[in-house]
Order: sequence, then C-alpha cells, then structure tokens
Amino acid sequence: MDSTAGTAELALLLEVAGTPTPGNVDRERDLPALSFEQFLAGATGARPGFRRAAEGGPFGEAFEEAIRGMAACAGTNTQFGAILLLTPLVRAAGTGALTPDRARKQVETAGVEGAVGFYRAFDHVAVNVPPPPADVPDVRQGSDAIATLRDRELSLSAVLTPAADRGGIATELLTGFDRTFEMAADLGATDAPLSRAVPAVQLRALETAPDPLIVTAHDAETAQWVQQRAATLAPPPGAADIDLPAVRSFARTLVDRGINPGTTADLVAGGLFVALEREEVTLQ
Amino acid sequence: MDSTAGTAELALLLEVAGTPTPGNVDRERDLPALSFEQFLAGATGARPGFRRAAEGGPFGEAFEEAIRGMAACAGTNTQFGAILLLTPLVRAAGTGALTPDRARKQVETAGVEGAVGFYRAFDHVAVNVPPPPADVPDVRQGSDAIATLRDRELSLSAVLTPAADRGGIATELLTGFDRTFEMAADLGATDAPLSRAVPAVQLRALETAPDPLIVTAHDAETAQWVQQRAATLAPPPGAADIDLPAVRSFARTLVDRGINPGTTADLVAGGLFVALEREEVTLQ
Repeated sequence: MDSTAGTAELALLLEVAGTPTPGNVDRERDLPALSFEQFLAGATGARPGFRRAAEGGPFGEAFEEAIRGMAACAGTNTQFGAILLLTPLVRAAGTGALTPDRARKQVETAGVEGAVGFYRAFDHVAVNVPPPPADVPDVRQGSDAIATLRDRELSLSAVLTPAADRGGIATELLTGFDRTFEMAADLGATDAPLSRAVPAVQLRALETAPDPLIVTAHDAETAQWVQQRAATLAPPPGAADIDLPAVRSFARTLVDRGINPGTTADLVAGGLFVALEREEVTLQ
Repeated sequence: MDSTAGTAELALLLEVAGTPTPGNVDRERDLPALSFEQFLAGATGARPGFRRAAEGGPFGEAFEEAIRGMAACAGTNTQFGAILLLTPLVRAAGTGALTPDRARKQVETAGVEGAVGFYRAFDHVAVNVPPPPADVPDVRQGSDAIATLRDRELSLSAVLTPAADRGGIATELLTGFDRTFEMAADLGATDAPLSRAVPAVQLRALETAPDPLIVTAHDAETAQWVQQRAATLAPPPGAADIDLPAVRSFARTLVDRGINPGTTADLVAGGLFVALEREEVTLQ
C-alpha cells in the first residue's frame, strides 16, 4: 500500500521535474507565488491521503486527507486536479488491478460521502473553477454544502456530472480515464529520459485538446491558440526531441501572459502514475 | 508521525533541488548513472522507514527499511549517508523534542540491534566506504556480519566509533550533530529562497572542512583543494549571492574529475530537516 502511495507521490514529483513544460511550474521555472519547492512539498503532503486510498479507505476521506496534507505542506494549491485524478487510480491499484474500468468503479461507488469529501477539500485551498451549474451546490461553499449534499443524496458522480463535457478531470473520472491511459502509453513508448519525455508528452497533450483550465481562467480562444502553438512544437509520438529554444520561448510567453495549462499537467501526472505502476517507464 | 516522516523526505528533496551544488546531483546536473529523478525516487522510497523511526520503532529496523525502500525505488544508492544522519533526528523529533542531546541518545540506545540493522542495510546497495578498521566487521559483509555483531555484542555506537574522527556522518551521530545544527542555523539565517540558500550553505560547509567522501574516493589533497576552491566562492554567512558562472564552472570541473562531496550534501539534508522542523525556513 505504501509503495502504491509512494508511486503516486513520485508521479507528482516527476511531472514537476520535467522541463520545459510551457506555462506550468517546472524545475527551471517558478510562477508568481508558486515555486518548484512548493510543488515538492505539496507532493509529500498528499502521501498520507494516497496511502488511505491505496488501503481501500473511503474515497472522500482519502481525497480530502490528501488535499489537506498538500495545502498544509505547500501553503497553497499546487496539485488539486492531479490528486483528484490520482485518488481513484491509487485506490484501484492498491486494491486490485489498475484498469480503466476498476478506476472508474472507484468513482461510481464513492457515493454521497465521496461528494462530501470532495466538497470538504475545498475548505483547504482556493481552486480556480468555472461558474457553478444550477443543479449542484457551488464547490466553493466547501463543507457548508454538506447538508445539501446529504439531503439531496448527491453522489460524487452526480456532482461531477455537470463538468463531464469539459474535457477535464471530471471527464476522466466519469468516462474511464481515456486520456490518462493514453498518456501512460505515450510515456511508455517514448524512448528518452523522463525529464525529456514529460515535456514531449505534455506538448502532444496540449496539441490534442484545449486545456480546460485555460478555458476557465481565460477563454476558449486562448486555449485554442495554445493548442495551435503546441501543434507546431510537439514532436511526433514516440519522439522526445524538441526545439528547446522555441519551447522555452513559448514557455516564457505563456508565463508572461499568465496562461497556465494546469489540467494538462494533472493528466501527465496521472499518466506517469499508470506508467510507473505498470513499469512502462524507468528512471535511468 | 507521518508529518515528521514527510518533513524528512522533503529535506532530501530540497537538498537535491538546490542548484548549483558543485559535484553533487542537483536539478540542473545529473552524474554518470545517477539522475535527479533517481534522487526523487530514493526520497519517496525512504519514507516508510522514516515513519517507523518517527513512531519510535527500533532504530536498526527503521534505518534498514529506509535504505531498502530507497534502493528499491531509485535502483541504486542515492542517499545512504543522508538517511543515516536523518534516522536519529527523525526518531528524536517524532518522540519528543528535536535537540542534539536527544538525537545522540537515539544512537546511544540503538544497541546491538542498531548495529544489525546498519549492517543489513549494506545488503541493499553498494556504498563507497573506507577500508575497514581491524576491530569491527567490514560493513560490506552486510548481513553476513550479524553473527559476529551478536557474539561480540557490538552496538551501533561501537561499530561507528572507528569512523568517529573522520568528520563524516559517524562523527555527527556520535558527537552530537554539531555540523547538522550549525547548517540548520545557517539556512535559517540566510535570507533567500531555499533553492539559492542551499548552494550557499553547501559552499560554506565545503569551506569549513574537507569532505570525507572525497577523502575516501580520492585523497586528502583532493579534499583540501576542493575546500580551498570553495573558500573563494562561498558567500559570507547570511548571504546567498554567489558568482553563478564561477560556481557553475567549479561544478563542471568537479563532475569532469569525478569528485563528489557527497557527505556535505548529506549534512545539508540533515540541516534542512532540522530547519524545517523548527520552522526556521519557508518554501515561498
């Protein structure tokens, strides 16, 4: 169990160690009020919650524990989305086979208490989320929404459903982790050290779809512009050779404009976990 | 307990994240067959052993568990000395106050089973050690030495004593962690982000004394030469401004000549743990 939790933590560390990952914190680039060191600390803080998930503990409690630990150690929100993506993957891996079906089942069976833990997690950090849909409580209410969740018997799946079509973490959790497992396969097929494979996979992921966090924080046009720029920089599948000056210049542009493709980073962390668990990548 | 173990792991991560740390792996520089990613993995692997120590588990078992986990995750020896230094500090912090006296007591009371765990740890990795003294078994025997340790009732303190005058980790463990706590104070007094404070503290430490691992792997003259070069590059106490091109050039020279001041890196990791536990440093 501890090794599964350790692998989840290592996935967070390897994601932030990969460089350059344009627009995201990496080992060569901090963002304003968000440092590489805080990401290291956030990863160590999430681990007890991951262990809880790996042991088959209640989904909602494990997730909230991971977020609480992350926030306590990092002092801010560093990896909320990645931890939400990793929790069902870790719970699946810790209690049986790590398959998309079993990961999805962890979400389906999380129930109302899964939703309660999910909302409680928002007590610990500020998270950039889209305006709330009419049919579920605003996540920014945090634990103030718990009575409503229980009264209306809203499950984790139910509260994530309004975001299912956004292509973000909710989509992964509800529809079977397609992009996460694709990224794991991409990482496994890329013949390069992980520090170079991670940026290559991130660029290919940015090319594949607009980043939902960019849509939320800016707009669809900005996300599409990033997607188009990434398409000119992403190496073909299996390759990791990138035009380093051009990618670094792209990274500077994104930071200057405050554009952060954070959901893509979350997906890469999820892909790293799957690839590490299946021993499809090595560290040498 | 988990938070003390997490802090120990974070100390390992922050040490390797500080750059440039001449001659050691850091976020900008791998060594041959030793990558930054392996150090991240080694730190995650050590954590269950740290938790055991923080809970007051037997010293020898906790240390061996940390080394076994490090080796399993990193695939090589990344942080043997740092983990040996951290184990008594973590055990002290987890079970009461983190003072030099209480840390030394963890070593004094580790007894014969402490020595057994120490030797067992050498089963898991190859460690660069000086030729063995005549009066204790060669550590490279690993668990083959256990019968002798028990027959002769050799305690952890007894087997470390022949190395007590070398100025390395054994000196710290037996004489009260002077340099570790000095480094914690230096880190706390340095007004700069940790990624810059770590190299400044490392240079001052290299200036203070010859690195024992360099003496072992090369000779006393080489260690003195490193000490003299560090003296020209180390900023005064409290400062973190370094001549970056000169320090990077020094770093390249050390890597080219295969010179690795690994014990100094271990001491910095120990200092980081103490400073983090006492909240004398922040991550922002």
